[in-house]
Amino acid sequence: MTPETWKRRGEWPLTVAAVLFLISYSWEVLQPGLADPVVRVLRVVDLLTWGVFVVDYVGQVVLAPARARWVLHHLPDLLVVLLPLLRPLRLLRLLVLLRFIDRGVIRSLQGRVAAYVVCATVLVIYAAALAELQAERGAPGSTIGTFGTAVWWAITTITTVGYGDVYPVTTQGRLVAGVLMVAGVAFLGAVTATLSSWLVSRVQPADAAAAASEAEAGVDRGAEPEPLRAEVDRLRALLDAHRIPRGLPDEVAGATAGTPTP
Amino acid sequence: MTPETWKRRGEWPLTVAAVLFLISYSWEVLQPGLADPVVRVLRVVDLLTWGVFVVDYVGQVVLAPARARWVLHHLPDLLVVLLPLLRPLRLLRLLVLLRFIDRGVIRSLQGRVAAYVVCATVLVIYAAALAELQAERGAPGSTIGTFGTAVWWAITTITTVGYGDVYPVTTQGRLVAGVLMVAGVAFLGAVTATLSSWLVSRVQPADAAAAASEAEAGVDRGAEPEPLRAEVDRLRALLDAHRIPRGLPDEVAGATAGTPTP
Amino acid sequence: MTPETWKRRGEWPLTVAAVLFLISYSWEVLQPGLADPVVRVLRVVDLLTWGVFVVDYVGQVVLAPARARWVLHHLPDLLVVLLPLLRPLRLLRLLVLLRFIDRGVIRSLQGRVAAYVVCATVLVIYAAALAELQAERGAPGSTIGTFGTAVWWAITTITTVGYGDVYPVTTQGRLVAGVLMVAGVAFLGAVTATLSSWLVSRVQPADAAAAASEAEAGVDRGAEPEPLRAEVDRLRALLDAHRIPRGLPDEVAGATAGTPTP
Amino acid sequence: MTPETWKRRGEWPLTVAAVLFLISYSWEVLQPGLADPVVRVLRVVDLLTWGVFVVDYVGQVVLAPARARWVLHHLPDLLVVLLPLLRPLRLLRLLVLLRFIDRGVIRSLQGRVAAYVVCATVLVIYAAALAELQAERGAPGSTIGTFGTAVWWAITTITTVGYGDVYPVTTQGRLVAGVLMVAGVAFLGAVTATLSSWLVSRVQPADAAAAASEAEAGVDRGAEPEPLRAEVDRLRALLDAHRIPRGLPDEVAGATAGTPTP
Repeated sequence: MTPETWKRRGEWPLTVAAVLFLISYSWEVLQPGLADPVVRVLRVVDLLTWGVFVVDYVGQVVLAPARARWVLHHLPDLLVVLLPLLRPLRLLRLLVLLRFIDRGVIRSLQGRVAAYVVCATVLVIYAAALAELQAERGAPGSTIGTFGTAVWWAITTITTVGYGDVYPVTTQGRLVAGVLMVAGVAFLGAVTATLSSWLVSRVQPADAAAAASEAEAGVDRGAEPEPLRAEVDRLRALLDAHRIPRGLPDEVAGATAGTPTP
Repeated sequence: MTPETWKRRGEWPLTVAAVLFLISYSWEVLQPGLADPVVRVLRVVDLLTWGVFVVDYVGQVVLAPARARWVLHHLPDLLVVLLPLLRPLRLLRLLVLLRFIDRGVIRSLQGRVAAYVVCATVLVIYAAALAELQAERGAPGSTIGTFGTAVWWAITTITTVGYGDVYPVTTQGRLVAGVLMVAGVAFLGAVTATLSSWLVSRVQPADAAAAASEAEAGVDRGAEPEPLRAEVDRLRALLDAHRIPRGLPDEVAGATAGTPTP
Repeated sequence: MTPETWKRRGEWPLTVAAVLFLISYSWEVLQPGLADPVVRVLRVVDLLTWGVFVVDYVGQVVLAPARARWVLHHLPDLLVVLLPLLRPLRLLRLLVLLRFIDRGVIRSLQGRVAAYVVCATVLVIYAAALAELQAERGAPGSTIGTFGTAVWWAITTITTVGYGDVYPVTTQGRLVAGVLMVAGVAFLGAVTATLSSWLVSRVQPADAAAAASEAEAGVDRGAEPEPLRAEVDRLRALLDAHRIPRGLPDEVAGATAGTPTP
Repeated sequence: MTPETWKRRGEWPLTVAAVLFLISYSWEVLQPGLADPVVRVLRVVDLLTWGVFVVDYVGQVVLAPARARWVLHHLPDLLVVLLPLLRPLRLLRLLVLLRFIDRGVIRSLQGRVAAYVVCATVLVIYAAALAELQAERGAPGSTIGTFGTAVWWAITTITTVGYGDVYPVTTQGRLVAGVLMVAGVAFLGAVTATLSSWLVSRVQPADAAAAASEAEAGVDRGAEPEPLRAEVDRLRALLDAHRIPRGLPDEVAGATAGTPTP
């Protein structure tokens, strides 16, 4: 089996596992005093979804042409599989669901990046708030005790505002916060980059249009330096003229990408 | 009626409604102990302006060629119309007034983006400060009690500085803050993108000029790899030379920018 | 006198006035318990430098071809001249001194932007710290009492970190802070834009080089789609060959762009 | 000896010195109550590594063609060598080790920038946390007492979140913080710039592809304005056709790229 086949076949099981994990993890964190049997079910779901991710990871390693290099280049994947703390990152798997939504709807690359940024940000905020609540709730000196506060904290952190009215005090909570801050920097960067490339792509056709109109204005005087386009236009005209006098094969005119006539 | 006609006709009523709403909302928030009849008038104005926005929204849905898709693609519009909390966002409608100011005055795309960013930022700060003051004033543990403090809070938030001397404590206030923070990220991004695209557009003509001067330096030696421009220049010169029936002047070969030989 | 002459002649007086203002303002703020005669001298210097800026502004308005429009387009200049609070912004005038330093030393546009950003940032931090210290010192509840703390506050603010251990409490101090925060956003934006345009300018020649090497690899097979450059190279070779054998016709009929023949 | 030889030969000694300094500095800061002989050894290592950096700096000055100018253009290097406070910046030297890791592995410029940003950020956070801990530990009113807290402070600072639960109070600590904040702004900028240039480079080929497909659609009608590429394609076809009928000299001598005739 090729790595591509493995990846394609693994898409649905992984997404289903991520959805199950989303439900079980949310339930576990948001309703702390659960009855014992429910807790046991949630643990099993947790283990099973973890198993799916482990199998996928092992499969990818085994099928990779250069295994050591693949592992080195996919260290984050290894960390997400190994560290229980990074479990919430499995939820990012759900972003593949976007593929089925935006197909054909959003055409521009910037539009697609924007859609991914919005959905990824919402997912990251949700996952970080859950993880932070689990880490901080009940810790001495903690300021994060409810899910609402955790979401509020996650928003102030990912936007890098950081009022400081709410902040983590435990080591685990701070690790979650660190990941979220880096996500925040990426978030800022992605928003800026999208706006920026949109602006650049808007500005350049305008420049080109300006150049073209200058070209048209300047083209009737052969002595003036002419832009490339106008130059090629004239070359074409001259060659078109050439074609007529000496019975050249007419089919050449339709040759899109130059199939040299035999 | 086409959707475009509807939009064009709705421009003025919507702008007038936004201005009225601006006045009534500001009055309501900034002068808390209003007499009963005034409050009633402000409520009516509020309802009327809301009505204008609802009519506009419904009209757009009805006239859209693919209704469900239009609604999906304009979810923010729906939220602004439905949620009383997002009412202040109606003030963004006033940005259309900019159209009549900058026409012909600001030519570059970056200039126009900069003007929009400045005006949108001022509007957002004003609207967020009003909404925050309404949400937080009088809440237990609140640090935002006057409009001045609310504006100060809005500025520290939109620039993502977030000292934390002033911050919202109510859920409604935090929702307003969340919207403002996202606006702040967009603000940062827009400023950066404008500067960035300006720089890129400045750098590229410089590169082109450098390439052109290199071309001129290298053009007299046919053996050296010449840039595209110079190449086409020589092609033109050669074809111009062809034009004259016979005994081609040999000096044409050296013609840098094609001076058609007499 | 043309506006350009006025501007050129005003350069030195304005710069000298800014230097004098820098010295007198720094002295006034940094050494609070000054003797009465010194204070009087500093006031006179302050008034004189203000006078130079007013004369320059009035001169520019009078000489502008469209006065009302000029005033509208240079509102910040008017504010700096009129509001005593914005006096420290006169120090930005000193940035013209950079012109004499970097001439010929820094060639790339990005390099020049970087140099301006660094110097402008240092100046803004210094000016903001002075203004903030003057505004906050002695205010009830103030946390800014020394110049060192003011500089620390200015740095945490312009980088948008905003710990909140030090923050302004007076209205004047908050206005200064607002200006500084906007400067901070511009600072962030300028750094990002410089890095970004540098990266883009590095990436594009690399792309071009990659395309060129692909071209060379693919060019020996005429059936494959060849890049533009290689194409023009071949055209040149063919035309070079044509030039020798025979005479071409005059009527370059159908010339789309450029009617060369008389 | 040329400056380049000096630089190449100095690479390994400097890197070894940086590694030794990393070990000795970390040990000194992280284990405060060291026995006297160990402290003495660490001091010697510190002095020796400093010596290596001084020798390298002096050598570069002596070998530079324009010494005064070199010093002016490399002021940061001088500061790092002279100020004990900036000693931790010597660790940035270790970034040269990246050269041996990424050779051939990361091909795109953005990939290499990303790798540098990640490694530089980790190094800067580590070095800043060490320096901050050394500066703040034991100071009155200090909130930074352990390495963990120092790292947490460094992360909240470099991402410009700045909760304000932990912040420096000593002058030395604030200087370290200032350097770290500027690094944070550069960090934000580098992330954004990398994302941005990646997006721009993705968008432009897409634009080109769109233009090309338009070209193909429009190419069969000579009257329509055709894009440059298609134009040159037709030119080639025409010239190829010319070549055949009249026994053209086969040796299209000097053909830079592409030997077409068999």
